Amino acid sequence: MSYDTNNIFAKILRGEIPSFKLYEDDYTLAFMDIMPQADGHALVIPKFEAVTLLDIPADQLSHTMTTVQKVMAAQKSELGVEGVVLMQLNGEGAGQSVPHLHFHLIPTHLSKLKRHGSEQGDMDKIKALAAKISAAL
Amino acid sequence: MSYDTNNIFAKILRGEIPSFKLYEDDYTLAFMDIMPQADGHALVIPKFEAVTLLDIPADQLSHTMTTVQKVMAAQKSELGVEGVVLMQLNGEGAGQSVPHLHFHLIPTHLSKLKRHGSEQGDMDKIKALAAKISAAL
Repeated sequence: MSYDTNNIFAKILRGEIPSFKLYEDDYTLAFMDIMPQADGHALVIPKFEAVTLLDIPADQLSHTMTTVQKVMAAQKSELGVEGVVLMQLNGEGAGQSVPHLHFHLIPTHLSKLKRHGSEQGDMDKIKALAAKISAAL
Repeated sequence: MSYDTNNIFAKILRGEIPSFKLYEDDYTLAFMDIMPQADGHALVIPKFEAVTLLDIPADQLSHTMTTVQKVMAAQKSELGVEGVVLMQLNGEGAGQSVPHLHFHLIPTHLSKLKRHGSEQGDMDKIKALAAKISAAL
């Protein structure tokens, strides 16, 4: 996949599409997945234009992982969850649907994961969970 | 979970238990998962004693992610796969079974993932796949 600047996460980064934002810095953005595989499902993306993990330089990836750690810590402290599944799909062949590198942070047990990208969640509930997680960010 | 120096990955790091090693440097080790969720399933771990992603300092995590990128690139080039699922479980509550931080690199589509840690694979086949992947590392 080559980078498509019209993908939905690029639009979210440019503010052309709204999102339930959790955290933003110079290098990364974290927001809620609106097709949650569990309550509190968040996404962390680099601002750098990468499709898969193989397309991002080490320094940009390092910034991204620091944000992953921050958001995961906030999920744990604010949602009272026992575990978080980190998942990141590389290529359509893996099931990647949006061609901008993204890390799924899903506060649940692996055996309880709902299907990836299957249906839109309850937006009011997602908004409330976003407010909770954001409180620690 | 506090760090248990007798966990199986700590033993692999100390060479007390054999593994199908793919790559090693000062900070990280990559080896084959012997309970593969797909052919070519590899694991990348830091040498740093961390249980979850929340227990590792940024610089150590950065080294770990660089190895993740190397191994994933080798899986793609040597196995001819279309996609790789990256998965990392944080806490028993997420399904983490070995209390040493580890990244699963599973060369398959998310929908085709076999169950996590369910049964031992064919050791000859795993050995042959390890040799293939190692060729690019």
